[in-house]
Amino acid sequence: MHTTFELQEFIEKAISELKYPDHPKRLYEPITYIMNLGGKRLRPALVLLAAELFGGDLEEALPAAMAIETFHNFTLIHDDIMDNAPLRRGKQTVHEKWGTNNAILSGDVMMVESNKELTKVKAAVLKQVLDTFNATAQGVCEGQQLDMEFETRNDVSISEYIDMIRLKTAVLVGGAMKIGAIVGGATEKEARLIYDFGENLGIAFQLQDDILDVYGDPEKFGKQVGGDIIANKKTFLLLKALELAENSHLEKLHHWIKSEHFDSEEKVAEVKRIYNDLDIPSIARETMEQYLDRALALFGQIEVTDEAKVNLLDLTHTLMAREY
Amino acid sequence: MHTTFELQEFIEKAISELKYPDHPKRLYEPITYIMNLGGKRLRPALVLLAAELFGGDLEEALPAAMAIETFHNFTLIHDDIMDNAPLRRGKQTVHEKWGTNNAILSGDVMMVESNKELTKVKAAVLKQVLDTFNATAQGVCEGQQLDMEFETRNDVSISEYIDMIRLKTAVLVGGAMKIGAIVGGATEKEARLIYDFGENLGIAFQLQDDILDVYGDPEKFGKQVGGDIIANKKTFLLLKALELAENSHLEKLHHWIKSEHFDSEEKVAEVKRIYNDLDIPSIARETMEQYLDRALALFGQIEVTDEAKVNLLDLTHTLMAREY
Repeated sequence: MHTTFELQEFIEKAISELKYPDHPKRLYEPITYIMNLGGKRLRPALVLLAAELFGGDLEEALPAAMAIETFHNFTLIHDDIMDNAPLRRGKQTVHEKWGTNNAILSGDVMMVESNKELTKVKAAVLKQVLDTFNATAQGVCEGQQLDMEFETRNDVSISEYIDMIRLKTAVLVGGAMKIGAIVGGATEKEARLIYDFGENLGIAFQLQDDILDVYGDPEKFGKQVGGDIIANKKTFLLLKALELAENSHLEKLHHWIKSEHFDSEEKVAEVKRIYNDLDIPSIARETMEQYLDRALALFGQIEVTDEAKVNLLDLTHTLMAREY
Repeated sequence: MHTTFELQEFIEKAISELKYPDHPKRLYEPITYIMNLGGKRLRPALVLLAAELFGGDLEEALPAAMAIETFHNFTLIHDDIMDNAPLRRGKQTVHEKWGTNNAILSGDVMMVESNKELTKVKAAVLKQVLDTFNATAQGVCEGQQLDMEFETRNDVSISEYIDMIRLKTAVLVGGAMKIGAIVGGATEKEARLIYDFGENLGIAFQLQDDILDVYGDPEKFGKQVGGDIIANKKTFLLLKALELAENSHLEKLHHWIKSEHFDSEEKVAEVKRIYNDLDIPSIARETMEQYLDRALALFGQIEVTDEAKVNLLDLTHTLMAREY
């Protein structure tokens, strides 16, 4: 068994050794570029952690881990086009650097690369791995679609929001772990349990992200604190506030949402004040903890030794203990 | 065994019965839309013809045929974005109707749908089918990339052009037949032969298309005759003419390529005159026939009865006997 850190290093090395065809250069350069932009390699690490949880072999699980990381980066390229994002991890996005057409096509071929990696898993589990991967990939596309649609809708409910983040973020966390588990030799029941663990953890993680965006320590949180408020992003916090606010709170909230010209700091401070008045941070943390508790209860049902569980449990606690 | 017509009807019925999820509506509607825009269903028919050539079962080969047709339509959606095309088969393109972001994402999920269809082939050939499909999909992406790059290049050679159409068009013809053959029980050698048959046939078919665009019967050719000339498309004919033209021919050719304001009919007539002077149509037909002959010679090496070969041979002759 390896620690998460060791697995991350193992993955980083494998990524740095990836070799795509030389030609056509403009098709493959963006892939090398985005794959080497960094990141914590959490999703492929989860594949490997899940494989080792069930006694699987690292080398055997590596292609599946690479497939997940390649797929994730493919979605980043296409999402960045759709979101018109100029930067990714502080660097130019692929479509900014190579143009939209190139970004579409390099993304497409990355999807093929993910599938090529997957075919390297052993024949006995190939079908099961592919079924899980395809269901995961489909869910991620559905989540992105809903996320785009929410931007122009004014009637998004909390349950719709949870379903969107489940699809956009959490199914990939669950799918990565389930694929690792299958390759590692898990039974169908165990694979199902670890998928559900991952999905619930993924939702908890995204809710934490929503909270940190407003209440995070600016020194420690990677992004601009209040960015979601400034952009009127329909997060759990905003949707909950819109649900609970009455009279002057509701009026103020609508005022800030509709304002086109405003002082960013003032808007963040004012909306934050409304959130605080309505007890939104406590409600959000409570909801987050419900998903985390459910995740841990499901993880508890997996019948392997406590020793085998240590690494995944440690990572869970690290992920869920970011500063806010 | 079934005739091509019967197979096309069989495919058409299967497509009309395809059912995608209801939700999110805007993600799946474009798929139903483009899948039902019509077309001759040649690629999936080739999957089935190849399966039957080796005694394969139709129902068993159908998912692979659907995978190929779904993949082909996915490439149409993304290519139409890149080409900024307003129409596809006389109807609005997906990105015109649903917007570019939606078109990107619906295309992505179609790629997942193709892969889902593929996992339905029997376990014994799954890996081999996936390897063929992934190599094919990768080739098609490379072909599209080269096609885009050629638009802004002035030094495209004939051999580069042939390689581009091989990737963009012919590998899918070969890949479709190889996948059908594998599902139908072909040996590795036979699968290789039918792939090479398809690839050469695909190149011959595309060269015929280049010729028909200039010399086709306007009544019978579906597109505007001379469209390639008007758009300065780097076809076999133009590249060959640029290679062979000297003095006044070369000057005239460059004049028409550079002209921004011109009478379309005049440009087509003048460029056609240069092609005729340089004997371009004969050279193009000769090259096309070389690929067709090579295709047929490879097909001849496949060791099945002449009776089994009749349908694929008939289709080949029908495809290659369009009016010009």
